[in-house]
Amino acid sequence: MSNVLWAKPGMDIDADIQRFLAGDDVILDREFIRYDIRASGAHAEGLERIGILAADELAAIARELAELDADVAGGRFVLDERFEDMHSAIEARLIERLGDVGKKIHTGRSRNDQVLVATRLWLKDRLAHAAGLCHAAAGVALDRAEAEAHLPLPGYTHLQRAMVSSAAMWWAGWAEAFLDDAGRLRQTWSWIDANPLGSAAGYGVNLPLDRDHTTSALGFGRMQVAATYAQLSRGKFELAALEALGSALLDLRRLAWDLSLFASAEYAFVRLPAKYTTGSSLMPNKRNPDVIELMRGVYASVAAAKIEVEQLLSLPSGYHRDLQYSKGAIVHGFGRGLAALGLLPDLLRAMEWQPERMRAATEASRYATGLAVELAAAGLPCRGAYREAANPERWADRDPDASLSARVSPGAAGALRLDGLRQRWAAGR
Amino acid sequence: MSNVLWAKPGMDIDADIQRFLAGDDVILDREFIRYDIRASGAHAEGLERIGILAADELAAIARELAELDADVAGGRFVLDERFEDMHSAIEARLIERLGDVGKKIHTGRSRNDQVLVATRLWLKDRLAHAAGLCHAAAGVALDRAEAEAHLPLPGYTHLQRAMVSSAAMWWAGWAEAFLDDAGRLRQTWSWIDANPLGSAAGYGVNLPLDRDHTTSALGFGRMQVAATYAQLSRGKFELAALEALGSALLDLRRLAWDLSLFASAEYAFVRLPAKYTTGSSLMPNKRNPDVIELMRGVYASVAAAKIEVEQLLSLPSGYHRDLQYSKGAIVHGFGRGLAALGLLPDLLRAMEWQPERMRAATEASRYATGLAVELAAAGLPCRGAYREAANPERWADRDPDASLSARVSPGAAGALRLDGLRQRWAAGR
Amino acid sequence: MSNVLWAKPGMDIDADIQRFLAGDDVILDREFIRYDIRASGAHAEGLERIGILAADELAAIARELAELDADVAGGRFVLDERFEDMHSAIEARLIERLGDVGKKIHTGRSRNDQVLVATRLWLKDRLAHAAGLCHAAAGVALDRAEAEAHLPLPGYTHLQRAMVSSAAMWWAGWAEAFLDDAGRLRQTWSWIDANPLGSAAGYGVNLPLDRDHTTSALGFGRMQVAATYAQLSRGKFELAALEALGSALLDLRRLAWDLSLFASAEYAFVRLPAKYTTGSSLMPNKRNPDVIELMRGVYASVAAAKIEVEQLLSLPSGYHRDLQYSKGAIVHGFGRGLAALGLLPDLLRAMEWQPERMRAATEASRYATGLAVELAAAGLPCRGAYREAANPERWADRDPDASLSARVSPGAAGALRLDGLRQRWAAGR
Amino acid sequence: MSNVLWAKPGMDIDADIQRFLAGDDVILDREFIRYDIRASGAHAEGLERIGILAADELAAIARELAELDADVAGGRFVLDERFEDMHSAIEARLIERLGDVGKKIHTGRSRNDQVLVATRLWLKDRLAHAAGLCHAAAGVALDRAEAEAHLPLPGYTHLQRAMVSSAAMWWAGWAEAFLDDAGRLRQTWSWIDANPLGSAAGYGVNLPLDRDHTTSALGFGRMQVAATYAQLSRGKFELAALEALGSALLDLRRLAWDLSLFASAEYAFVRLPAKYTTGSSLMPNKRNPDVIELMRGVYASVAAAKIEVEQLLSLPSGYHRDLQYSKGAIVHGFGRGLAALGLLPDLLRAMEWQPERMRAATEASRYATGLAVELAAAGLPCRGAYREAANPERWADRDPDASLSARVSPGAAGALRLDGLRQRWAAGR
Repeated sequence: MSNVLWAKPGMDIDADIQRFLAGDDVILDREFIRYDIRASGAHAEGLERIGILAADELAAIARELAELDADVAGGRFVLDERFEDMHSAIEARLIERLGDVGKKIHTGRSRNDQVLVATRLWLKDRLAHAAGLCHAAAGVALDRAEAEAHLPLPGYTHLQRAMVSSAAMWWAGWAEAFLDDAGRLRQTWSWIDANPLGSAAGYGVNLPLDRDHTTSALGFGRMQVAATYAQLSRGKFELAALEALGSALLDLRRLAWDLSLFASAEYAFVRLPAKYTTGSSLMPNKRNPDVIELMRGVYASVAAAKIEVEQLLSLPSGYHRDLQYSKGAIVHGFGRGLAALGLLPDLLRAMEWQPERMRAATEASRYATGLAVELAAAGLPCRGAYREAANPERWADRDPDASLSARVSPGAAGALRLDGLRQRWAAGR
Repeated sequence: MSNVLWAKPGMDIDADIQRFLAGDDVILDREFIRYDIRASGAHAEGLERIGILAADELAAIARELAELDADVAGGRFVLDERFEDMHSAIEARLIERLGDVGKKIHTGRSRNDQVLVATRLWLKDRLAHAAGLCHAAAGVALDRAEAEAHLPLPGYTHLQRAMVSSAAMWWAGWAEAFLDDAGRLRQTWSWIDANPLGSAAGYGVNLPLDRDHTTSALGFGRMQVAATYAQLSRGKFELAALEALGSALLDLRRLAWDLSLFASAEYAFVRLPAKYTTGSSLMPNKRNPDVIELMRGVYASVAAAKIEVEQLLSLPSGYHRDLQYSKGAIVHGFGRGLAALGLLPDLLRAMEWQPERMRAATEASRYATGLAVELAAAGLPCRGAYREAANPERWADRDPDASLSARVSPGAAGALRLDGLRQRWAAGR
Repeated sequence: MSNVLWAKPGMDIDADIQRFLAGDDVILDREFIRYDIRASGAHAEGLERIGILAADELAAIARELAELDADVAGGRFVLDERFEDMHSAIEARLIERLGDVGKKIHTGRSRNDQVLVATRLWLKDRLAHAAGLCHAAAGVALDRAEAEAHLPLPGYTHLQRAMVSSAAMWWAGWAEAFLDDAGRLRQTWSWIDANPLGSAAGYGVNLPLDRDHTTSALGFGRMQVAATYAQLSRGKFELAALEALGSALLDLRRLAWDLSLFASAEYAFVRLPAKYTTGSSLMPNKRNPDVIELMRGVYASVAAAKIEVEQLLSLPSGYHRDLQYSKGAIVHGFGRGLAALGLLPDLLRAMEWQPERMRAATEASRYATGLAVELAAAGLPCRGAYREAANPERWADRDPDASLSARVSPGAAGALRLDGLRQRWAAGR
Repeated sequence: MSNVLWAKPGMDIDADIQRFLAGDDVILDREFIRYDIRASGAHAEGLERIGILAADELAAIARELAELDADVAGGRFVLDERFEDMHSAIEARLIERLGDVGKKIHTGRSRNDQVLVATRLWLKDRLAHAAGLCHAAAGVALDRAEAEAHLPLPGYTHLQRAMVSSAAMWWAGWAEAFLDDAGRLRQTWSWIDANPLGSAAGYGVNLPLDRDHTTSALGFGRMQVAATYAQLSRGKFELAALEALGSALLDLRRLAWDLSLFASAEYAFVRLPAKYTTGSSLMPNKRNPDVIELMRGVYASVAAAKIEVEQLLSLPSGYHRDLQYSKGAIVHGFGRGLAALGLLPDLLRAMEWQPERMRAATEASRYATGLAVELAAAGLPCRGAYREAANPERWADRDPDASLSARVSPGAAGALRLDGLRQRWAAGR
């Protein structure tokens, strides 16, 4: 097992134990290897700037890393159990091609800061991607809010019909929700945008590493200064990234709940295109909204990933091997979460309202609230208005459209203030 | 039970059920009532601006709210089971004092946006307070990092002594950690800094509420525009606030772990002032670091609060009574979390190093790493240097102080870059 | 602060720290004090059996403990901040009344095994109570399954109407669910039915304590033998108890979801008695199923309690103060959980079906599945039958009652096998 | 995509959506397919008993299922993306080999009860395996408790040295812990030992399925009677199984914490064989207890799996596609958990105490407790004894061995009562 970096001759290695140690780590590293390659390039540049590598050595390393990266991207190099992990795979490739020069790449770094920086870059990309998807979803929601201003929809509290609402109000709510989610993802991106490379195993090295260079070369906003903190941030930053993703997925879960109800026979407010549904093996007559249900279910995977990271972090300072399991957690959480978010903009574009069903569900009694407010505004004491408004005879002459246009509090159907949301959306592009 | 706003004559009310519905809600509302009073004042101002209240009515309401607030602050008014919740308590007081005028306060709002706005204001205060405590902790850590530059401390990975570290490196790590935590708390403060008042039960009202006024009067950075989103953000914002708090508490948990070990007989690197320890009823000779352990344990309460909120949020749009339980969760999480963080700055100031024990724990073998890097930097291929450095004879002439000052990678003992952290700290004041 | 057992003269005690240490522990101890009194009695008996207490000393202690217990039960003694915790309160009372004899009660025990045994007894009572409530709920469900055999109800998968089901099938499912839950609670009761008293602080004492006596006197099924394990089981047993409770509450959450939908205007299959609903302050026309929603929401509190305990348990062997927080967790989880379960049997008894709505919701297309099976059973290849059955013309002559009585697979409407469930129920009494 | 059972001609199928629907389900099904094959065999037998299959048809199906099972076991058949899931793979094979007869296997069942029964059988095997591993670990611990009676070890509370304990006490604690864990796993095995096959999609079928036969043929202890409950138990039983596993893993986490400390330079009570440790790429001198740390970390994966299932279960009655994600959760949790438990018995056998270090760590002050008890037993009032015992002069003549043998409370070093534990162990074989 020549790829085990720390193996000493004569050491007894047990297969079960090795399997347990390895876990699925090398398979998971497929997610991260291109980031590790990129960070290795920056590290090599830094080494050249402090005289550890000669210019031609750097050039050779850079060339080989680029080729390896292309091989990975093109599927010509596949990380598998031949390697202990991505770090040894990269080093092995450099040594195979460049001999002793290749060995120099590991000078002044540790697998600890290597995995930190690769994970950090990966997380940043995932957060940016998630923010983009939320932004896109918010855009579709805004478009439809603007287009569907006059479509009544029952407004529910406690799953009871409460007031007349509208498709536009429903869309506006989701637009603002996903704008906020995109904002949270971007905040989190900034928060973790700090370079841990150069912290070695958490205590630095006796070389004047050019961490300012690697920080800018890798596009980080700042250096993660304290070497000990680089280690302390492992898991902490992963958790925050998952939490920001979770915020979007929580909204997706509630949205999927709405659609799951709206697509039922009882509500029938929404028709889903066939591709979002599946049939049943035993019940030929049914179309099931499986895609919606899985979108709803995905939050569970993000929640699980959060817990998996969180439960690992009851530890003293410094690296502990327990933290290896944080890798699988983020791959699981972001893998599922991004897949679900990725389907959202198209789904929002494609779902079709069933206006006659929506209108039919806005019964007269829904006007009581509006009436109560009118009476109160006209000077009747509030509680008196409340009682008067509960009289069914007072609802007779009401209709949903009038009710909606009378709802002029900012953010309600008669005064949606979509312009403000549109401006936030445009600024977030 | 005249305080049940919705009671109708002749209705059968069951005591067990009422108790279940009420839960500990009215007791929890003691946390929130002053925020509800404040938001009620802003709402009244808004009503006056749109002609629902006359100027003298507003003045009367403002006066009574101020008096009630003072009564609450001074302990002369205590919220208890006589009331259904804080909302009815406030309204009851206004009606008792002002009659029909008092009843008008409820025009154009709902208990739904009332609880949202009171909770939002409460959360903002808690987040700001938590950020301040993290900032204070970071300040102490920075002070001590600057003052204790030359104190060796073993650096651990896997709880094994790895390299020579220093008190200053340890402090610098925690300084940066709590700076980040303060930053996260402030980001989160901004993210939730949106006014839900005026969204009523999630569908607005048929009155041109002056939400721009209430937004600025209550010090919010923006309006939460969509009335439906105000409801969707319940729980979502609570969760994000708890997560930001959790980030700080995760660090506190790891810090408490360090101290718990450092205060043990085996390590004995730290002496805790007696007030942080307790005695044992059965073992007279022992001093137990109970305060440290409870600080470590508090993360569990924050984690629990997060789960409690998260588990409630698998719901369709709109208000559902389930969400009531989010109130207790944030009180529990922030209550415990802020209490623990509140003790941190003083604890960091007060803990005393035991230098002779720290120095004794930095054995010669700890220099192997430095040596390996030196050899590699001198041109020996990295893996060769690694093997050479493992030879104990090569460690003989080393000492911790030289090892520390040679560690010149930015963020390590020889180049701590505390200035940068100090600048971030000063900017965060 | 004379009640701090371990205080030494001249020690500096800080009020904030003391408050943090105390937390709400003494208030929580109100839940446990009667169990502590009971265990103190058994401990005293054990001390008398090994000669530490004289017979008259035991009698005096027993008398005082009985009186204290009666005072607690009668509200004449209220545990509050005058005391550090229930242990000191009990001891203080005995010393006040009996002088030196009272002090002897603490011989050979520690607050560690005291809190363990009191919590264990408390948990056993809570588990038994929860099992009883599940059993009662199962009984109501069985009664109604037997009585309502012929009431069609749509059967859903994916919230889509799938087949004709029946009220009886719905009831039978819940009956079996709560029978299983009662069984799980009883299993868990047995599993934790082990006496930790006499393990002292986890290492025993140099006295031949009569643990066999205390085990039987306190009604435990077995002794928790190893003194070190008594400590290791703290939190572990609490977690298992919460998990068993959670199993029942998960079912309650799903049941509450059913009712929440069934009580909506869209389904309208169920009418809830008014006492299970509340009105709205702004929407006079609505009745909200708040009780149902809170029952659904309570799972979140049990989940939170589980996490709170679980997050504390990343610790080495032995007692750590972190574990104090497990107390609040179980009080929270069982408090909320039992309150919700306690309302269940009556709710199940009281809810009323709306037969005409249920029947109207069983459309013809619901028969496709049955038809497909018929055709397949008649020899048509399964997939062919599937296609044939999807032809709407084939559904014309079907009706829900025939569909239900033809459903003769065991456990379906035509062969419910309620006898078996009834036998399990009777055996569980 | 001919393997999509429900596809209709002309339907638009989107690749991204299909990928999202499929997830990693078919790969996960590799874990379950042999159980699905086994349950398919029992189902076929049942069909023959009610006349749906002829005897020769059953024989043919049984033969093909046996061959497929052998092919899977032998790696000749690998489930992959060619199939939608294991159910279609099995059916496709039967149809390929047996034509129309093969199609009949799906008569009277649904993928819903198929996946339920396969998962149930899988869970039962995993629980039994986990119980066996806990039992084995308890056995090693008991052996070593019996063998190492006279080895002093500090006993800690709060990570402070509290009293003299012993290796035997440490082992006895873990022996009882893992006995309990095995018991919990077996209880849980019994609890879920109920046959869901024959419940179809949760509403039964119009065939007199011989569920009594499939129940006994598959080795189930009872039938899961109500068809609706079979669906309600999905996730609920998975969660309980993970919780029982978690109970063992919680103990493993605490045990790993002990070993992680004991293997440190500061404690140095334990030497781990080299195969349980790894080297460091940067620090040649170190041996890191990675295996121990991963064993400790595995609880996080079980906790994550629990949350993933739990978060899915906020649903009304009936099957919902969200539940698909419970499959990955149990594979993850049991995969990691069993791998860690699987290494435990050997690890316990192989770890070596360092007696001189253990003895050196039992300082004189550790005797104060014993002394206090002695004085109290001799008649000194307890609190007086407590003060007297705190006098260092009173400890001078004490030694660890005497302290241990004087500890005669049952379960302590002087009266370990290993016989009782041994009997429980033997009964659990």
